[in-house]
Amino acid sequence: MKARVFVTLKTGVLDPQGKAIGHALNGLGFRTVGEVRQGKVIDLDLAEKNETAARASLREMCEKLLANTVIEKYEIELKP
Amino acid sequence: MKARVFVTLKTGVLDPQGKAIGHALNGLGFRTVGEVRQGKVIDLDLAEKNETAARASLREMCEKLLANTVIEKYEIELKP
Repeated sequence: MKARVFVTLKTGVLDPQGKAIGHALNGLGFRTVGEVRQGKVIDLDLAEKNETAARASLREMCEKLLANTVIEKYEIELKP
Repeated sequence: MKARVFVTLKTGVLDPQGKAIGHALNGLGFRTVGEVRQGKVIDLDLAEKNETAARASLREMCEKLLANTVIEKYEIELKP
């Protein structure tokens, strides 16, 4: 089973990297671009076949290692 | 319109960061984890209302700034 985990900064947490990208895009002439936020995407191959079990273990991975839950939130997407 | 852009390394390009995450997860006891790849996710707010135009301009942003197309590939997701 393939899984995709998004780790992004919580709303309200300053994102200087996103701001820099936004400014650069505006500078390149992309005037329609408003707010930009940058995060991480992690693609995992799991041997787990059961979706509920996979989701539970991914949640644990996020809490333990992948995300800093003080300032970051995560989303889990499964592709069987 | 909100857009999400994924920038990930092309298959075949070594991803030491992903490997490190995979090792760390195995070390933490997540034995079902196989290959891990890490990439970037960029969330953008666009003033553009037209989906085709938005997609075209996002493609241009990726080619010009967001992705290094020699080693990275990108995916564009639109949420109206």
